[in-house]
Amino acid sequence: MSQSLRALIWKDDGLEVLDQRHLPDQQRYDRYTEVEGVAEAIRSMRVRGAPAIGIAAAYGVVLAAKRRVNEADENWRSALRDDFKLLTASRPTAVNLRWALDRAHHLLETTQPVREDVVAALLSLADRIHAEDLAANLAMGEAGAALIAGASGVLTHCNTGSLATGGHGTALGVIRSAWAGRQLASVYATETRPWMQGARLTAWELAQDGIPVTLITDSAAAWLMRNGRVQWVIVGADRIAANGDTANKIGTYALAVLARQHGVRMMVVAPSSTLDAETPSGDVIEIEERTPAELLLPAYQTEDSLVNGWNPVFDVTPAHLIDAIVTERGVVLSPDAQRMQALLA
Amino acid sequence: MSQSLRALIWKDDGLEVLDQRHLPDQQRYDRYTEVEGVAEAIRSMRVRGAPAIGIAAAYGVVLAAKRRVNEADENWRSALRDDFKLLTASRPTAVNLRWALDRAHHLLETTQPVREDVVAALLSLADRIHAEDLAANLAMGEAGAALIAGASGVLTHCNTGSLATGGHGTALGVIRSAWAGRQLASVYATETRPWMQGARLTAWELAQDGIPVTLITDSAAAWLMRNGRVQWVIVGADRIAANGDTANKIGTYALAVLARQHGVRMMVVAPSSTLDAETPSGDVIEIEERTPAELLLPAYQTEDSLVNGWNPVFDVTPAHLIDAIVTERGVVLSPDAQRMQALLA
Repeated sequence: MSQSLRALIWKDDGLEVLDQRHLPDQQRYDRYTEVEGVAEAIRSMRVRGAPAIGIAAAYGVVLAAKRRVNEADENWRSALRDDFKLLTASRPTAVNLRWALDRAHHLLETTQPVREDVVAALLSLADRIHAEDLAANLAMGEAGAALIAGASGVLTHCNTGSLATGGHGTALGVIRSAWAGRQLASVYATETRPWMQGARLTAWELAQDGIPVTLITDSAAAWLMRNGRVQWVIVGADRIAANGDTANKIGTYALAVLARQHGVRMMVVAPSSTLDAETPSGDVIEIEERTPAELLLPAYQTEDSLVNGWNPVFDVTPAHLIDAIVTERGVVLSPDAQRMQALLA
Repeated sequence: MSQSLRALIWKDDGLEVLDQRHLPDQQRYDRYTEVEGVAEAIRSMRVRGAPAIGIAAAYGVVLAAKRRVNEADENWRSALRDDFKLLTASRPTAVNLRWALDRAHHLLETTQPVREDVVAALLSLADRIHAEDLAANLAMGEAGAALIAGASGVLTHCNTGSLATGGHGTALGVIRSAWAGRQLASVYATETRPWMQGARLTAWELAQDGIPVTLITDSAAAWLMRNGRVQWVIVGADRIAANGDTANKIGTYALAVLARQHGVRMMVVAPSSTLDAETPSGDVIEIEERTPAELLLPAYQTEDSLVNGWNPVFDVTPAHLIDAIVTERGVVLSPDAQRMQALLA
């Protein structure tokens, strides 16, 4: 399996993290051999994307355990608990971060490894979490690509590729698989304001894999559809409610409305861990708003400025605007509560 | 009439031009006393916006005539013709630029002023073109505001204000008038990628007038509508076809589709000089595409880069998505070919 691009590499008892903040200008890996460094890499967004954050945290636990069991102190278990807290706090809202740490905690509680086996057990878990994510992405890539007719144009939003996951990607994984199957005539990526993940990461990542990509401004997507250039919009998800309503990067909802109006189909690609059975619908998903400063030029960042900004991070796309939700457990066409429940059953 | 902000000021036999390229960081006027300077100010986009360009060109003709009639040469008329050409070439596609120059040419041809009266006649024409544009904007402001119910939220796109016109503005003129009439609960402006006219110019211009404004990314407009925060989208126009189809800044079409889906109304505000009776519908409007380089990070600007960009400057909004076209000659509700024709009759 070719995997040219990796956000995270475990090597010689250390975690090498591609610093995504400097992409595409600099391709630099930082090496971490202590848990504090991994926590800081997550906090500072050197690594980003929910699945990638979870994997990084799992390797962070390995580094923490290595130090604790080598210390003379017999209380290595309680010391390790502090390291878990440090990692949890590095991105408190990331679902996959907590999920990965819960798995590590569960492993220690249920198997009770002896001191000399702890590191190996945790490393094996981290490798498994990484491999499972990659396998899920490859499965989703195949399942999503199967929905796409030959010679299609596709549009994606934000970054959902190798940089954000254990490899291959979710929405970008489908695009990779469809490209490999010679099903795509063209790939378009939105810039994705305000963080420019499309321009900085997705375009760069696709080019690294030899896939030609055309950037558009977010506001040109409707005109792109009107000109018949795309047949599918393919995006990831941050959270999918029990009825299929999908929270994802701001701008996804606009693309879904526009797609439906232009006869373009809408595909959401996410691992089943993104499905939240506890959330009945998108109406109850609280939307995080980031600081308006991200939108404000320095001239406006004064106390008495009359220029403000509204900066929601996500929006919610109602299920009825989604044609397919693709997970590693299967594909749900025209999602609703009943069909989503059947997937999880 | 209060007019705090002026893109162009004629003063002491020279044209003072606000250099819009450095807004909002620097508010700097450059003074031009020769036609070459005015042509360069247009070419370099120190001044922008179709009406403002037309006005600048009219004053440029005054400066040109002043020099030519003071020269000993008796052939001042043919020399002046070269100056017209210079100005025409400064932004070859700007409709209002050619229109203003045609008016100056027509004046000279029909009135045949004696040499000592030429400058005064051309200055009087330039002042009139400027004043007419301002008057038209004030009329449109009033007519557009009359359509808006009290306590409305409005969203605008790009910059259509004092900076782009002889004063007050087209779409932004309606917002100014409606704000003055206490009809607006809130004003939102899109950033307007890739040139950021909304973030750089519209937000700054509104704040200069004491009107609070909230910036959003272009891709957040749909979510803004979904949250019920706006009742009107108000935009300008670069060209309006005989059936009401409207070419305007890229992203306008997306806003129109989204507005219709959310029960938000769409208003186009433009002087009647923007109506093009020769163009039957938007289908035959050729859309200018600018260089992809405007979208591409330096890392992608290599010969063999797989990252490209698609950068249309305008899009076309079909008339059926427009609720009102506001001109200084009247308002057309639910525009179509027949109603547009009635306006011009």
